[in-house]
Amino acid sequence: MPKIVDHDQRRQQLSDAAWRVILREGVDGATTRLIARESGYSAGVLSHYFESKDDILLEALRNAHSVIKERLNALLEHKTGFEALRTFCYDTVPLQAEQIRETQLEISFWSRALVKESLRSVQLTESAYWHNILLGVIIAAQELGELVEGDPFIMADILAGLIDGLSVHALLIPDHYDEKRLIKLIDAQLALWSTATPKDQRGSV
Amino acid sequence: MPKIVDHDQRRQQLSDAAWRVILREGVDGATTRLIARESGYSAGVLSHYFESKDDILLEALRNAHSVIKERLNALLEHKTGFEALRTFCYDTVPLQAEQIRETQLEISFWSRALVKESLRSVQLTESAYWHNILLGVIIAAQELGELVEGDPFIMADILAGLIDGLSVHALLIPDHYDEKRLIKLIDAQLALWSTATPKDQRGSV
Repeated sequence: MPKIVDHDQRRQQLSDAAWRVILREGVDGATTRLIARESGYSAGVLSHYFESKDDILLEALRNAHSVIKERLNALLEHKTGFEALRTFCYDTVPLQAEQIRETQLEISFWSRALVKESLRSVQLTESAYWHNILLGVIIAAQELGELVEGDPFIMADILAGLIDGLSVHALLIPDHYDEKRLIKLIDAQLALWSTATPKDQRGSV
Repeated sequence: MPKIVDHDQRRQQLSDAAWRVILREGVDGATTRLIARESGYSAGVLSHYFESKDDILLEALRNAHSVIKERLNALLEHKTGFEALRTFCYDTVPLQAEQIRETQLEISFWSRALVKESLRSVQLTESAYWHNILLGVIIAAQELGELVEGDPFIMADILAGLIDGLSVHALLIPDHYDEKRLIKLIDAQLALWSTATPKDQRGSV
């Protein structure tokens, strides 16, 4: 009887191995040889599941996003208004080891996406998903009257920019951008738009 | 008579070649072989001036920063208060081809700095310089009464985060984050802190 191979499981193992190698060596140093060795499978098996290094990297990125997606949905399920918005922001900056790993993977992809159209287009589709959740959370908070009126698209673009920028800074300058500092900065930005803030200390856009 | 070699000039040529190769191939694909070919010198000459690929990359980063530094100093020379702050922000997001190239180099370095301590420490020293200029410009604008009171360190961290995040988004999603949009977003953020904004539409931190 031939050995039964669970292809989905094996694909997942290879993709997990790729992620670990990227985190350790950088996306630059993550060769297919190292990924195969890390996974415990041969380079031949690896090439059966993935056409190229970029193919493996994209799978790792998609898997990371799917983990984030599930965690975020669970976190937001019982939250509304301003609290949901704050929860979204806290969960998308690298406060915990898990988010630090995700951010590292993301930043590694950015530099590669700059010179690879195929990676860029997939990353765009993926990041549009987050941006839409953020936009939805902002609009819902406005509808509840917990966030000032104003263009929610501008607020979403500003917050998305701030979150990604702070994420980079947190990874490169962890001594300054520790958990306490990141929370303080996000709270300071959100307070500018919170209707709970005294009127002369808040703004709109 | 031996040929007289201008070493500074040659070093600069090699570093410029490195920059061009990074922008075209990504920091990943920028091999010493390609950099040597681009410069018109041999790999042997290249190795005479630089010990390693990272050594070349750091030189390219430092040169880019020195160009930005000069341009920024010239731009800020005759500006004060809120206008100086806005000028700083406009110049550090990728609105023009020159800034787009600089941002691309910077993002390429981030991913490499994540796994290379030596690159990270140099990049920190370099980026601390910008952060200090930004902080100085914020404090000066507060002293002139053109920016709301509040913790200038928090404002600087938020703006630095926003600028770097928007820079990434502008390079990855240029159709959405075009010049007009970037200016609109920066103006919206700065308006939250401008004393020229009607009082109930601005905030403090």
